Amino acid sequence: MSTAPLLEQLIEALRCLPGVGQKSAQRMAYQLLERDRDGGRRLGVALVAAVEGVGHCERCRDFSELPVCPVCASASRDTHLLCAVESPADRLAIEQATGYRGLYFVLQGRLSPLDGIGPAELGLDLLARRLAEGGVGELIIATNPTVEGEATAHYLAQLAREAGVRPSRLAHGLPLGGELEYIDRGTLAHAFGTRQEAGN
Amino acid sequence: MSTAPLLEQLIEALRCLPGVGQKSAQRMAYQLLERDRDGGRRLGVALVAAVEGVGHCERCRDFSELPVCPVCASASRDTHLLCAVESPADRLAIEQATGYRGLYFVLQGRLSPLDGIGPAELGLDLLARRLAEGGVGELIIATNPTVEGEATAHYLAQLAREAGVRPSRLAHGLPLGGELEYIDRGTLAHAFGTRQEAGN
Repeated sequence: MSTAPLLEQLIEALRCLPGVGQKSAQRMAYQLLERDRDGGRRLGVALVAAVEGVGHCERCRDFSELPVCPVCASASRDTHLLCAVESPADRLAIEQATGYRGLYFVLQGRLSPLDGIGPAELGLDLLARRLAEGGVGELIIATNPTVEGEATAHYLAQLAREAGVRPSRLAHGLPLGGELEYIDRGTLAHAFGTRQEAGN
Repeated sequence: MSTAPLLEQLIEALRCLPGVGQKSAQRMAYQLLERDRDGGRRLGVALVAAVEGVGHCERCRDFSELPVCPVCASASRDTHLLCAVESPADRLAIEQATGYRGLYFVLQGRLSPLDGIGPAELGLDLLARRLAEGGVGELIIATNPTVEGEATAHYLAQLAREAGVRPSRLAHGLPLGGELEYIDRGTLAHAFGTRQEAGN
């Protein structure tokens, strides 16, 4: 191999990014060195800073530089509502799509016994303590509609009921703008089975 | 926005990578912070090191940490052959696919007057001096078979002839393993027009 070792190291290191294989890593490295060295330097510095500086909020487990994240620390959020999501990305999606003004709890995963992910890994002891504190009236369970997400939702609902908190789930059914013909059978069957009286 | 500023900076910085938009950048940042902080740190360090340490070989213009890259400095390469390619990736592809043991000249682009890329940007003065030195018997022109690549090839061939060096081009035609039915018309027409007598 005749390529410069630093370049090889960079290509190898880029492969830690999700969805980036040898070819893409090579293209990224060449692109940065050829056309955007400033961007490359900025990214390098940002990576090290984020890895060193970003931890988890001790209230909601979302990523945070501070011990308590700005959402949890905010005085303008409705502390009676708590929404459990699997990941920070899900939290962001809800924050951006809805007018939700309550608080969040980020599981950072879903129950998956085969991968060794149990209640402890999802911080459910923390969540149980939080629910036991009182103050939360409704636990909105927004896990993904997958098998593991459903199992996690079931567990969370029990946890909520034990603490006397009302659990709720996001509605399942046809996505807006979807065409019946192309919607998967499971969703269609569910939407059909849980049909509601039409408004007028 | 409630996300940690360091995280936002990281997401923004990741977008300098080719083919990475807002969503992918977010996914990459979350993935690194959730599952691979070591990889993230390593990538950050590798980026800064490569951006600071990797320059261009003064002989062939390929990326190199040293003033002259290992290929140009090698005593075992055939200095009579010089292969001009558009990018370091092309050089690597030829090196890996063929048994070529000559030297390279990396243009780091192609003639593209509309983008302000002329002979000077491609280091063609350096190439002209190299050809004038004598010692090179054949300039293998391996630019891409695109309009700009062809224009560049034409220019390089002239340069070679002026210096008394024989220019050659990679063969054009059907790719091996391709099916006639699916090959683009231009390639098919070219392959048909430049058909050769069948061997026996």
